[in-house]
Amino acid sequence: MQPESDPKEALLAFFRRHASGVAVITLIDSAGNPYGFTATSVTSLGANPPLATFNVASGSSSWKALCDSSFVALHTLSEKDMLLAVKMSSPHELRFLDDDWFRGPHNLPIFEQASSVAIGKIREIHNVESNAVVIVDIEQGLVGESGGALLYHQREYRGLGTQLSNRNS
Amino acid sequence: MQPESDPKEALLAFFRRHASGVAVITLIDSAGNPYGFTATSVTSLGANPPLATFNVASGSSSWKALCDSSFVALHTLSEKDMLLAVKMSSPHELRFLDDDWFRGPHNLPIFEQASSVAIGKIREIHNVESNAVVIVDIEQGLVGESGGALLYHQREYRGLGTQLSNRNS
Repeated sequence: MQPESDPKEALLAFFRRHASGVAVITLIDSAGNPYGFTATSVTSLGANPPLATFNVASGSSSWKALCDSSFVALHTLSEKDMLLAVKMSSPHELRFLDDDWFRGPHNLPIFEQASSVAIGKIREIHNVESNAVVIVDIEQGLVGESGGALLYHQREYRGLGTQLSNRNS
Repeated sequence: MQPESDPKEALLAFFRRHASGVAVITLIDSAGNPYGFTATSVTSLGANPPLATFNVASGSSSWKALCDSSFVALHTLSEKDMLLAVKMSSPHELRFLDDDWFRGPHNLPIFEQASSVAIGKIREIHNVESNAVVIVDIEQGLVGESGGALLYHQREYRGLGTQLSNRNS
């Protein structure tokens, strides 16, 4: 292994080699307008009580709406949903133009094609420098078809590969 | 989509459909003894300054050592490293028996086979119920070979699948 003494380069090298599942997070502002973005940082924070986290930059187009919101809808995507992931990371004014979403619990925008949706109540927005860790209590969900998960690795979208083992736990 | 009104079931259904990259996190206790575990929650929290997060249960075997530590080594794994991921989620006394690690920066245990290692200084352990979000400042790294990333999905280890697009950003 080669040492990398520059902190930013060390971070970038690490996450270039790390793969992530792809999610779309939606919310509404106080007027009910839809907001949303693609995220690769959705993780579970325990099942008792059911908690999840995601990270967001405080400069993002959804930041102000997020700070005014009580709820978010987390969507997990399948391989077939790559174009939705691309759209939800395009300029914000393009993200809700199509007829591919409906109003779900708490008036949240829900993309019907998602393989699963978890509705979370925002417990805390924990600011760290110019970013934040958002902690949500999962309160209900919508379960769609089970398909191969959509992944992001080295700035490319990928599908799931071969199974390497049987169940490990 | 089918509604799921039970919060815990909604969380479990969501994360069953969500895939994650696999990491191993190592540290030492105040006596220098090695600790470590497999994690699927390592995410970037921004590059300026370089920050990463991971989640850990306060009942885990590494918890006490983590609370006494200043540094952690985050390892990202490739497909070929599945057995290391399995070992690092086995009983703790089995995790450092083999001759597959060395002492790196800050005396941290480093697994040579990892595709990349990021050394993080613990900035904050943010407790949430019986779990915690750990926020680290990345200070340096060790960069290994670039290989296909190791993934975890539906309690199985998987490799990366086909590329679905060209670069998207």
